[in-house]
Amino acid sequence: MRPAGSADIRSGFWHERRQVNAGVAIPQGPGLLESAGNLHDLRLAAGSAAGEFRGDYPFMDSDVYKWLEAASWQLAGAANPDLAADVDRITALVAAAQEPDGYLNTWFQAGKGAGRYQDLRWGHELYCAGHLIQAGVAHHRATGDKALLEVATRFADQIDTAFGPGRPIDGVDGHPEVETALVELYRETGERRYLDLAAYFVDRRGHGVLGGEAYCQDRVPLREQENVEGHAVRQLYLLAAAADLAAENADAQLAAACERLWSAMVATKTHLTGGLGAHHDEEDFGDPYELPNERAYCETCAAVASVQFGWRMALLTGRARYGDLIERTLFNGFLAGMSLDGERWLYVNPLQVRDGHTDAGGDQSARRTRWFRCACCPPNVMRLLASLEHYVASTDDGGLQLHQYAGGRYAGAVAGTTTAVSVNTDYPRTGRIRITVEEGPAGRPWTLSLRIPQWSADPRVAVAGEDPAPAPAADGWLRLERSWAPGDEVVLDLRVAPRLTRADPRVDAVRGCAAIERGPLVYCLEGVDHPGGGLDDVVLDTRAPLAEEHRPDLLGGVTTVTAAGHRRALPEQGWWPYRDATRPAPADGAERPDEPDESHGTPLRLTAVPYYAWANRSDGPMRVWIPTR
Amino acid sequence: MRPAGSADIRSGFWHERRQVNAGVAIPQGPGLLESAGNLHDLRLAAGSAAGEFRGDYPFMDSDVYKWLEAASWQLAGAANPDLAADVDRITALVAAAQEPDGYLNTWFQAGKGAGRYQDLRWGHELYCAGHLIQAGVAHHRATGDKALLEVATRFADQIDTAFGPGRPIDGVDGHPEVETALVELYRETGERRYLDLAAYFVDRRGHGVLGGEAYCQDRVPLREQENVEGHAVRQLYLLAAAADLAAENADAQLAAACERLWSAMVATKTHLTGGLGAHHDEEDFGDPYELPNERAYCETCAAVASVQFGWRMALLTGRARYGDLIERTLFNGFLAGMSLDGERWLYVNPLQVRDGHTDAGGDQSARRTRWFRCACCPPNVMRLLASLEHYVASTDDGGLQLHQYAGGRYAGAVAGTTTAVSVNTDYPRTGRIRITVEEGPAGRPWTLSLRIPQWSADPRVAVAGEDPAPAPAADGWLRLERSWAPGDEVVLDLRVAPRLTRADPRVDAVRGCAAIERGPLVYCLEGVDHPGGGLDDVVLDTRAPLAEEHRPDLLGGVTTVTAAGHRRALPEQGWWPYRDATRPAPADGAERPDEPDESHGTPLRLTAVPYYAWANRSDGPMRVWIPTR
Repeated sequence: MRPAGSADIRSGFWHERRQVNAGVAIPQGPGLLESAGNLHDLRLAAGSAAGEFRGDYPFMDSDVYKWLEAASWQLAGAANPDLAADVDRITALVAAAQEPDGYLNTWFQAGKGAGRYQDLRWGHELYCAGHLIQAGVAHHRATGDKALLEVATRFADQIDTAFGPGRPIDGVDGHPEVETALVELYRETGERRYLDLAAYFVDRRGHGVLGGEAYCQDRVPLREQENVEGHAVRQLYLLAAAADLAAENADAQLAAACERLWSAMVATKTHLTGGLGAHHDEEDFGDPYELPNERAYCETCAAVASVQFGWRMALLTGRARYGDLIERTLFNGFLAGMSLDGERWLYVNPLQVRDGHTDAGGDQSARRTRWFRCACCPPNVMRLLASLEHYVASTDDGGLQLHQYAGGRYAGAVAGTTTAVSVNTDYPRTGRIRITVEEGPAGRPWTLSLRIPQWSADPRVAVAGEDPAPAPAADGWLRLERSWAPGDEVVLDLRVAPRLTRADPRVDAVRGCAAIERGPLVYCLEGVDHPGGGLDDVVLDTRAPLAEEHRPDLLGGVTTVTAAGHRRALPEQGWWPYRDATRPAPADGAERPDEPDESHGTPLRLTAVPYYAWANRSDGPMRVWIPTR
Repeated sequence: MRPAGSADIRSGFWHERRQVNAGVAIPQGPGLLESAGNLHDLRLAAGSAAGEFRGDYPFMDSDVYKWLEAASWQLAGAANPDLAADVDRITALVAAAQEPDGYLNTWFQAGKGAGRYQDLRWGHELYCAGHLIQAGVAHHRATGDKALLEVATRFADQIDTAFGPGRPIDGVDGHPEVETALVELYRETGERRYLDLAAYFVDRRGHGVLGGEAYCQDRVPLREQENVEGHAVRQLYLLAAAADLAAENADAQLAAACERLWSAMVATKTHLTGGLGAHHDEEDFGDPYELPNERAYCETCAAVASVQFGWRMALLTGRARYGDLIERTLFNGFLAGMSLDGERWLYVNPLQVRDGHTDAGGDQSARRTRWFRCACCPPNVMRLLASLEHYVASTDDGGLQLHQYAGGRYAGAVAGTTTAVSVNTDYPRTGRIRITVEEGPAGRPWTLSLRIPQWSADPRVAVAGEDPAPAPAADGWLRLERSWAPGDEVVLDLRVAPRLTRADPRVDAVRGCAAIERGPLVYCLEGVDHPGGGLDDVVLDTRAPLAEEHRPDLLGGVTTVTAAGHRRALPEQGWWPYRDATRPAPADGAERPDEPDESHGTPLRLTAVPYYAWANRSDGPMRVWIPTR
């Protein structure tokens, strides 16, 4: 499959989120990058400012590049002179900061750290180069302007003289990212050496070049790896590159490794929200089925990286299930990272905040934050939202595929003929999606393929005026082959309704719990919706039906789900939260909790809201998984 | 209450563990401190060696001091010329390393870091001083030798000229420890200024002197604090000092704060093993009822600190329940920190290791390790084991109290008369404890108080030849008042039997699980005892009785507990570990896990061993909490 040659999100859920991204988040970028010192650091390197380096990390530049990428994608959509001026100004600053030989990293240029390429494990020089390259490619594709791409290419050329077989340095960066960027640069320029350098970087890992740490994706060669491990974002950026290389080089072994690792990851290390990364410590994936709630790390960047990896796999394999995870990630683990107003961010995305939570603040806070010391996530959200249309549709010789449902127009070449559909939907408020054929090969059949999400229990479809009928999915695709005429309509109904979800018994963290979902949305309880505000004692009655209500007034317009439940009769606060379950009654009466009665308590109507919208009203408790009676 | 003036553990469980400590762990100390560089660093400071500072932390010296403390307590018990020679040699080295004005920290003396007292948050200078003082006091008490105490006193005096009201520095150390040490130094020397300095250090915290971080115990004044928080070891060392000060200064407000914080900690933040600290990240306590299993931090040092704090509270208040937690901690969360052979250590003490666990090694490994980069825990275990007799018994004007049950002899003054008992027991193999009065006030009544552990459901006692009868406990004490004659015997039977334990429903991590306990021992399953080796799928049948078997051959002699159970019929490995619980049957058949049948599977006899003995045979999975049918 190929990405749709033309894609435009014009209406509906994602359009609204993208309006906030375009109207609030991206325009605020330059001011925040100024406040945080990133632009100052570029001026230092350019010799146009004096003073100390600002910021704590050698990857300060990458925030600028990710913002430039986001802004560039934004400029592709509509003229915006103010934004274009900001992009040009910052591009000029980046160009001015570049060394004559192409090297560019303001941290090392400011004399911090060990010196150029002396600390590959932590230096992030190639990581930053990768983001610069991605920004340069985006800027060129979106605007036709080569200014940023030329800066990026000069850096890529410098790296190509320094790293690789027969070059001075046999090594890789501690944080993958340049690899997938180099493949993009190859695609943009046709220069094969960028692809070869990317392949070198991917295959040198796992041979102890960085000390053999899983954290740096260096414990084992990716081709031999059995499950995802180490730092989640690093693993996923690396896998995105591997999928790129598998496609470009028709490397079946690498493709098989990517499929195996994606499957193992989804089966054993993925939170319900699509969030990835179970440990705060080292931002690590954790063990299989180790999926904690309050300490879920689920870095927003890992969600972005998962979408990037999954989309490459969808194109590589044509399989629908990658779109299932992408959809789940976008609507939940990813989108929660940005506040509804586009002004505050989450770096980590826990599935629970307890009553009495003490928040230490800082980057890993469970409270939305204006910007971070390590500000990798906000511009990552900005660039994915600004380029989201690229992840919706694809074409191949047989037809056009819709992987996601977002109101807009999607077009590409099918057997040499431009083929286009438009999509109208209020999804996920309802499951009704109207797809209209706009153009396509005339007079001969082609296949319109619609992904049927795994959660959709009983999808229905009405094709070109026929009556609705069950929509049969094969491997997750509803494939409609016919000679389509312009104006033909397909109405797909995924039948969104609230449902309860349970986990594999090996997911110890959620034993005896259920989650509420509705369509692609994971729901959560927030303290603010429940009298008393606490959630540590709530119990869900799974026998009573779930009810839904659309609330245009709430959280920008959400459908709430309500459920029967109660507040558990909690044991008296004992000296100790454990009790002898063998003994019928306490011997001394005083200090031991009573047998908790888990079957009833004070009735409580539970109100769930979409997870993506949590923490927009208050800082109180939250939980996705709810104990059941 | 006062600690027993004379105490000697001579037989039984703890005697055996102390033999390993004395025979293996402590004698290996100097060699390990040599290998790790600690002694080299002292030589550097003394000018008797050249080269680079070795080790990564400004608290390298504290490992030496804790070892000196351990060795000193050991020397109190029995003559040991080799050990005494090591202590003298290392004491001389410490003395030689000391600056003329009394300051001593080899990290800063080697020119590392910001300079003397310039980085109080991380410098650990007063922390190291505290351990030096404790070692000096121990050395003097145990041997009568003042050499190390004089070094410690010189450093204390230097600190007293530098810190405090009217002194150059108004600040505290990022890591509490010097405070409780200064109280000991006051007790040893009678110099009130040490006590005042300790009080200053305790009360200056919480006023933002270290930036206001909970990590450094600086968010809120301890007198106002509502629950334990931040770095667990720091919190507990600070609380030990506060309890000391409450006692010495008759400070009722401080005593109330200590009681409140101990109670909140035990009620909401204590693992079943007595382990403390829920987060790897920042070694933090975590939120109330946030008590994870696989990621339990439960640092061995936190267990040591908890015992120190609890013992001070027991003496301050006379309450038995502090002894309950001390016992639980000693037998479980503490003792697991040392291997049965005394040669390997755990820094963190998780309650679960999953099937397929990937261990990254390093200090926080779930595998026993020979020594650590940050080697705080091993010498901490050594010093507590070597001084364990101090935590067993106390006296007051009314009699003698046994807080713990360890074979030996315990004596102190009761109303001016030396009063002594001997204890003989194979506890916790059985619950039978024979206490013999050896001497005491003649012809008038005094009270022998025996702590009845909270877990003991139906204790029995036979006094001076009478028939066994139920042992009535009031506030956890069985108080036996009579005119005791030498030779009078009390036989207490705590009736050790296997039992099942459940947790407060707010402890989400163990919902639907039970733990096996027996007397003071928490039990765990290890993969090595179960065919197939995995534990992620085991289920405990709580309706069948538990059985016990003493196994002298196993793990140095343990009583195993077996239970009925099964391996769960696991769902087919789906693409995703979550399933729609509302939907009766999968729609597409292929990729969705079946409804797991949790009620039965392959029958499996579960064999549990004491938690303290885990990870002595293999590196496989382990779990304390077991899902129940």
